[in-house]
Amino acid sequence: MVRYPKKVDFPVSKVRRYLEPGPIVLVSSRWRRKTNIMTLGWHTVLEFSPSLVGIMVSEENYSFEMIRDSKECVINVPTTALTDVVVAIGNSSGAQIDKFTEFGLTAEDADEVSAPMIRECHASFECRLYEDALVQRYNFFVFEVVKAHAALSPKYPETLHYTGDGIFMVSGRVISRRSLFLPEMLG
Amino acid sequence: MVRYPKKVDFPVSKVRRYLEPGPIVLVSSRWRRKTNIMTLGWHTVLEFSPSLVGIMVSEENYSFEMIRDSKECVINVPTTALTDVVVAIGNSSGAQIDKFTEFGLTAEDADEVSAPMIRECHASFECRLYEDALVQRYNFFVFEVVKAHAALSPKYPETLHYTGDGIFMVSGRVISRRSLFLPEMLG
Repeated sequence: MVRYPKKVDFPVSKVRRYLEPGPIVLVSSRWRRKTNIMTLGWHTVLEFSPSLVGIMVSEENYSFEMIRDSKECVINVPTTALTDVVVAIGNSSGAQIDKFTEFGLTAEDADEVSAPMIRECHASFECRLYEDALVQRYNFFVFEVVKAHAALSPKYPETLHYTGDGIFMVSGRVISRRSLFLPEMLG
Repeated sequence: MVRYPKKVDFPVSKVRRYLEPGPIVLVSSRWRRKTNIMTLGWHTVLEFSPSLVGIMVSEENYSFEMIRDSKECVINVPTTALTDVVVAIGNSSGAQIDKFTEFGLTAEDADEVSAPMIRECHASFECRLYEDALVQRYNFFVFEVVKAHAALSPKYPETLHYTGDGIFMVSGRVISRRSLFLPEMLG
């Protein structure tokens, strides 16, 4: 069984720490009485403060309308401990199954949004819609992270990075070049 | 010295292979007689065909106006062989130096755009501006990859993934879950 990482409050202005390296994320949503989860690799940080993240959600996903209509979601960061669950979520549809039940995941109440957090993930970022100008043309939503939760340990969790064709790159070692950075480029 | 990977034509609809895992990229540009290079970690794939990529270029970068005015750029993917060059590029400004000369990089003519490719990088994607609706508000450009070049080997290059604070995560091993994917999710 997957252990539950104990998450603590994390500064919303620092979510780039987890999102910029490009991990596959699990996006959870709620609309009316239904919840759902989708896998997503097409996202980018857009601003530190307000903490903005852009995500491209294909309209073929059952989650698309739930996210568009509720104007909320939670972006959860899974580690390699959840590899097979991530794959199963990405290869099934919320139209047929309840993904929380089916894959043994725990829906946890968020603080600021009604979409549920996934307890088994390393980090969960509560998001509220900030800009929908590119939704119709590109299915691209700009969300503001209004509250962030992250486990303290491991400091650099092993994340999954999709390359297409069923193949994931896994995060490897960490290297610091801190001493080569200008002071204003750090922090 | 950094070796020059021999690049061959690569299908533009498959650039997610290199960009979706979230590597730091080097964006090269040309405006009038000047060229420049910037580091960038805030990008996302947006569509397979046309091959669309969104990038957030802070207007504090010297490259911002060059990219905005020329409506072109090349997105180059460096490997860990270029780590210190990547850091040096990110901690200097094209207002003061010629980055190609200063860092010993080779500007190579692209086929479809006037911005130069960086020969030492593993892959180079020639881009033309496709949508500027979010440029003014978020410095977010939607580019179309009009021509792609990638080295054949190594198949999974070791890429750099920035986490802030001078620290990079390096890509690690590759795992396949191909057998667990639905046929329509592959390819």
